[in-house]
Amino acid sequence: MVLVDELRRILPEEQVTVNPTVLEQHSKDESYHTPHLPDVVVFPKNKEEVSEVLKFANDHEIPVTPFGFGSSLEGHVIPYQGGISIDFQLMNRVLEVRPNDFLVRVQPGVTRTQLNKELKKYGLFFPVDPGADATVGGMAATNASGTTSVRYGVMRDQVRDLEVVLADGRIIHTGSMTAKSSSGYHITGLFVGSEGTLGAFTELTLRVYGIPEVISAARAVFPSVEEAVATVTDILSAGIQMARIELVDARSIKQVNLYNQTDYPVKPTLFMEFHGNEAGLQYDADFAEKIAQDHGCEEFLFETDSKERAKLWEVRHNLAYAFVHKSPGKKMMVTDVCVPMSELGGAIHDAREAIDRIGLDGALLGHVGDGNYHSIIMIDVDDPEEMKKAAELNAHLVDYALSRGGSCTGEHGVGVGKTKYQQKEHGESLDVMKAIKFALDPKGILNPGKIFE
Amino acid sequence: MVLVDELRRILPEEQVTVNPTVLEQHSKDESYHTPHLPDVVVFPKNKEEVSEVLKFANDHEIPVTPFGFGSSLEGHVIPYQGGISIDFQLMNRVLEVRPNDFLVRVQPGVTRTQLNKELKKYGLFFPVDPGADATVGGMAATNASGTTSVRYGVMRDQVRDLEVVLADGRIIHTGSMTAKSSSGYHITGLFVGSEGTLGAFTELTLRVYGIPEVISAARAVFPSVEEAVATVTDILSAGIQMARIELVDARSIKQVNLYNQTDYPVKPTLFMEFHGNEAGLQYDADFAEKIAQDHGCEEFLFETDSKERAKLWEVRHNLAYAFVHKSPGKKMMVTDVCVPMSELGGAIHDAREAIDRIGLDGALLGHVGDGNYHSIIMIDVDDPEEMKKAAELNAHLVDYALSRGGSCTGEHGVGVGKTKYQQKEHGESLDVMKAIKFALDPKGILNPGKIFE
Repeated sequence: MVLVDELRRILPEEQVTVNPTVLEQHSKDESYHTPHLPDVVVFPKNKEEVSEVLKFANDHEIPVTPFGFGSSLEGHVIPYQGGISIDFQLMNRVLEVRPNDFLVRVQPGVTRTQLNKELKKYGLFFPVDPGADATVGGMAATNASGTTSVRYGVMRDQVRDLEVVLADGRIIHTGSMTAKSSSGYHITGLFVGSEGTLGAFTELTLRVYGIPEVISAARAVFPSVEEAVATVTDILSAGIQMARIELVDARSIKQVNLYNQTDYPVKPTLFMEFHGNEAGLQYDADFAEKIAQDHGCEEFLFETDSKERAKLWEVRHNLAYAFVHKSPGKKMMVTDVCVPMSELGGAIHDAREAIDRIGLDGALLGHVGDGNYHSIIMIDVDDPEEMKKAAELNAHLVDYALSRGGSCTGEHGVGVGKTKYQQKEHGESLDVMKAIKFALDPKGILNPGKIFE
Repeated sequence: MVLVDELRRILPEEQVTVNPTVLEQHSKDESYHTPHLPDVVVFPKNKEEVSEVLKFANDHEIPVTPFGFGSSLEGHVIPYQGGISIDFQLMNRVLEVRPNDFLVRVQPGVTRTQLNKELKKYGLFFPVDPGADATVGGMAATNASGTTSVRYGVMRDQVRDLEVVLADGRIIHTGSMTAKSSSGYHITGLFVGSEGTLGAFTELTLRVYGIPEVISAARAVFPSVEEAVATVTDILSAGIQMARIELVDARSIKQVNLYNQTDYPVKPTLFMEFHGNEAGLQYDADFAEKIAQDHGCEEFLFETDSKERAKLWEVRHNLAYAFVHKSPGKKMMVTDVCVPMSELGGAIHDAREAIDRIGLDGALLGHVGDGNYHSIIMIDVDDPEEMKKAAELNAHLVDYALSRGGSCTGEHGVGVGKTKYQQKEHGESLDVMKAIKFALDPKGILNPGKIFE
């Protein structure tokens, strides 16, 4: 109780709570990872309040875990050592849109859809789309990406400046409003993806883009995963810029058909989106179709109308639901390895085999242009046998990826789920990361147990 | 002599030299900064040799300065505290091209044109073009960019993995071969732009791109700098992707006309390059021309043929020479501030006024899509009055940029020339940078005096 009283001396009373429902909400994310309650949840309204909370926590060596929307997938926001959960939902304002600079300045609690609603007024949009309606603070903390990164890049590519409250309460700005800079160390990119272990973000300056004149979409069916991946490689080699390129494997299509009573061809399928002008897009789509046909494409559908486009992508959008629906009461484990593109076909093949061999079931889908793919496995977290199988699958996929120059996580981050693979992936450079962590958070109060074991 | 003898115990004799000519070559870069001799120059052939040299230097607290091509513009490679200059010219092999992964693995001494010659065989190219035929190691060390970053990004955006030898000789890999990763801290981006102060690069894995199907170019003449900049903003808002957009001011065109006996309109002029397919490019160029005309464009020329394209860009290419030519015996000072795009028109106006007011002369050109511009001033380094004027101009431009959310260097880096502006630009985040430097190079042997005062 002392902790609450102390915090209520720093923040207005209503911004500090130990309400059991609120604590429970801040004990978990959207993953299968075991929940753990914080001791207290605070709702700061500005950077000064965040700074005061951190100064206090640092002085008393109390763990602090930043919390956005709670949509993380590796337990990032779960406060396994208790302490203070900082919820940024009261810091949710779009502070400034600078259309001529293609920039927006926002507070960390702004969600992706909220931001895009505001930007639309200016003919602009923010491209990073991780699926969930996450906060931009959370997206920056995990270096989120999603379906559009083949064209627009990942979260790290969009962040121009962060206002960060450090462990000891100091408030810094990491960057500037310029498109580029070679001034000093690039610490913006270091803080992006640091998962709350180096500081808490209180403001972000993000890059935004003009809404493309025309958006078109295509769906293409292939005899094999390898031919689908080869098509994407050839399309990218030809310099055709796609905004999204998603691969869904045959087993996954089968499940969607079952769930939706549709009859899509049960074959590896590519879902594409093109952004540009009408003349260029038609040309690009024709070229893409020709390349697809060279790789045995059995059906190539192309649409520009927005409703028809949505229909074309229906399978991709319904994929997770089709598997969630068939597994009531289970939790989702989403694997997230990334491999060099030339290894993706083999990796997806191997993943499907591993899922079958281990005796699990789930979807397989890939952000093909990035070499990043997910299996979505529904597991009963109370069944130790199933949990063991899930862990075995995860470990197998990570080993496969690492042995081929890949990464254990393409976009979800380390959280607690991937700490055990950090040594293997990074080798001695993990010591460099730890040295940086120690230099900036010597008492280890910031999101302890995440990224590092 | 002891130092040389010790180093010759570590490296083959012919790879360690105190030859005065060689020392002199390693005492300077392409800028006006005062030269300073190293005590010895070494030419390692592999990472193990680099590691041995660094272990030795760290044990004996001897300064070490990495050296690529020597084309830096802020004294980065000048060993002001003497010690060892590590020249990477013997590590100049393209190790592996992975066309299906759009990756290349290279040694640090590979030059930009050497790399592109090799990539061309695969229909690929490396887009970063800082002008000079720098080594990729040096380009990564300074986070170089140039004319193409509006489309392809800067050096940091291309580096997937670095093999780095740390101050104490440890050899690490900072990244992987994947297009993206959210695994651990993004230290690749931290080492890129660290100017040899955190480690020496011994291998780089770089992103490469398919050579575009069609390249076209345009030149457009405007009544004012503001209208030219507004045109670029509108073009980017419309989602038209340009590969290069360069602005040259009227005074600079006048000098080119004098030097080349040409009669280009003495007005602010935009030089554009488009990459894409034929249909799309024609559409984009027509659209760009329409936008330009809305901003009072007085002449818009468009070309696709490669010879005609080169002619269209002639002014831009001859710019520096036109000023160098008129100032025999002088050295070049190139300023390099970056501002938010909305501030660029005002900044260029102010820069021209400042050049006139201070009593200097030179070219003004901008990478408009990035808000980055240069003045190229020829100065007599032996004339204290002229040196004072140059310093005054530099300081004025930096102050102007910083007061408008800008950066003191867009692409050249800090070196010794911009150390004095670091505190003002970064505030307390400079302490974070220093903490990282101290964590990784506690004895301060790596390129001392650069970035930090």
